[in-house]
Amino acid sequence: MDAGHKFQVRKLEILDKSKDDHSGKIIATGSVFIEKKFLRNCGKVGHIEDVVVDSAARGMQLGKKIIEFLTDHAHSMGCYKVILDCSLENKAFYEKCGYRQKEVQMVKYFV
Amino acid sequence: MDAGHKFQVRKLEILDKSKDDHSGKIIATGSVFIEKKFLRNCGKVGHIEDVVVDSAARGMQLGKKIIEFLTDHAHSMGCYKVILDCSLENKAFYEKCGYRQKEVQMVKYFV
Repeated sequence: MDAGHKFQVRKLEILDKSKDDHSGKIIATGSVFIEKKFLRNCGKVGHIEDVVVDSAARGMQLGKKIIEFLTDHAHSMGCYKVILDCSLENKAFYEKCGYRQKEVQMVKYFV
Repeated sequence: MDAGHKFQVRKLEILDKSKDDHSGKIIATGSVFIEKKFLRNCGKVGHIEDVVVDSAARGMQLGKKIIEFLTDHAHSMGCYKVILDCSLENKAFYEKCGYRQKEVQMVKYFV
């Protein structure tokens, strides 16, 4: 068991600071973590996770901005590819961001 | 930038020690890493990666053994689910291992 692998993680949040109290409500967020593969000459793979845009903030291209930022970050970190899993309904959105479908995601739940 | 996230990684290798020199050739391997989500009350998700069985060792259920071991490990580590990406051709194999398709995997290559 190797419990010490360090994965570099970058989390992005877009805040709405328009309220008078400047509390800064999070209206969009997303993360990417960088995995160093055992295979492929220890190449790096970016995994985009947890992309969420507040439903009240749709139509502002925030999702696209989040994806572009996280994708560029993975690229700058030396990843040879970035992957993410999404529902079929969101496939067209990610295609607009330059992604294409490659595989299928399988899941097993324990709860 | 948080560069210090520790992801617990477990890598399994099955060796063929039948050669006279006991060199122990790897005939099957697979890994699982445990991601702590920012969402979902910091729940844990297991990611199975890099499952490979030597073509000369097919038919011995080694792939199934690898998946069962990695899935059980993720469960014992407190994951609420395990996910993996696979080609459509391998979907039936993972269904036999108790997995079901949920989403699609999108990819963007930089090279």
